[in-house]
Amino acid sequence: MRVDVVLCAEQVPAAPGGVAGSHAVVIDVLRATSTIARALASGCAGVLPVAELEQAAARARSLGALLGGERGGLAPSGFDLGNSPRSYDASACAGRLVVLSTTNGSRAIEACAGAASLQAGSLLNAEATARALVERRAERVLLVCAGRRGQVSADDAAAAGCIAGTLALRAAAEFGDAARLAIALFDAWRHDLHGLLLRCEAGRHLVSLGLQADLDDCVQVDSVPVVAERGPDGVFRRGRPR
Amino acid sequence: MRVDVVLCAEQVPAAPGGVAGSHAVVIDVLRATSTIARALASGCAGVLPVAELEQAAARARSLGALLGGERGGLAPSGFDLGNSPRSYDASACAGRLVVLSTTNGSRAIEACAGAASLQAGSLLNAEATARALVERRAERVLLVCAGRRGQVSADDAAAAGCIAGTLALRAAAEFGDAARLAIALFDAWRHDLHGLLLRCEAGRHLVSLGLQADLDDCVQVDSVPVVAERGPDGVFRRGRPR
Repeated sequence: MRVDVVLCAEQVPAAPGGVAGSHAVVIDVLRATSTIARALASGCAGVLPVAELEQAAARARSLGALLGGERGGLAPSGFDLGNSPRSYDASACAGRLVVLSTTNGSRAIEACAGAASLQAGSLLNAEATARALVERRAERVLLVCAGRRGQVSADDAAAAGCIAGTLALRAAAEFGDAARLAIALFDAWRHDLHGLLLRCEAGRHLVSLGLQADLDDCVQVDSVPVVAERGPDGVFRRGRPR
Repeated sequence: MRVDVVLCAEQVPAAPGGVAGSHAVVIDVLRATSTIARALASGCAGVLPVAELEQAAARARSLGALLGGERGGLAPSGFDLGNSPRSYDASACAGRLVVLSTTNGSRAIEACAGAASLQAGSLLNAEATARALVERRAERVLLVCAGRRGQVSADDAAAAGCIAGTLALRAAAEFGDAARLAIALFDAWRHDLHGLLLRCEAGRHLVSLGLQADLDDCVQVDSVPVVAERGPDGVFRRGRPR
């Protein structure tokens, strides 16, 4: 198994080997992919990421779906839900489809078009995500960090390192250079991931918005053992138990 | 002191705060900036990086300079010297100007146009490079990894982490996310940097060309205590002792 990490969505076109045919995992720890994992664990029927605000609202109306997401970290007016994982509990979303509009996460998902499979990965479901890749005998894995404004985001890189490290425990994995950086970051901070999230740019932005509780929710490694897999219709659904 | 790392030259335009006004360090461990440090330590009068082969040859002719560099890792025909640090000893280059044409290193240097100052950094001269930044009271430091084909290169990132960690020992430093990745990488491998260079893409390429000795030469942290600073004419010269 060859494991590469792309440190921000804008670098996907230069990814070693390319996206096509790879088994990709998109990672936006603060907060899109943490929210997707949490919503699916709460019994949400599926999450459809849509980048543009107006398009997201139109899709939600036509599908009878809940509309969630953020701009600048906060829920736009008229949205049913923001982008805080804890707001996606069973009472809010069980049995419902959610259209989720976020900035960096949606861009990263779009960049992964053409992948053989696409999961939403986070610290919350790192082990479940890695196990799914091993069980499908993925030969080429691309862990795609959403990043932030074209730069690497330490929260995403740490989750990529966590998933890559788990893959190494379960399969004979060969790592690209960026994967080594991600693994080193996770290993350096694994006993203080909350401290890393507090220090990284995305975490500091959330704290400045009063959303510090989201950091607590997004940092719990393997607390949401859910495989979040995108279907051909673009909707992320809970993966079947294997 | 704010310290940011740019993980590959192509990301310089998105660097936090931008290049303009920052004190920049370009890093191409395998091998351009290691070679610059080594050449200056050998008494070379200066090193002028020029990206294009033909332009480099023309500049060398007009300046009466030695012509060095590589394409695909090897010296192009007609060049006086390749890009192996050990070939830049005193007998080869003392008192001479060198025009150096390399791929990734030259691109990174060009991307740093507009910086308040520009040094060539490597593992060899990490501490000297950091000390020069502290002594000039740089408020904003940009450590620019050359990278490789638009992707991060672990050798460059490790040197950036080494320099960033040294800055933290000598000044009150605030780190961006990419700096945290670089620091974690260096810390994880600091006792086996040779192993990291053997595993990274650039190192494997050099080994495949029979240039494994270059890895041995480029991995010796702080063995070449030289400040390599670019002048207004684009030539890197040995910094004055402060």
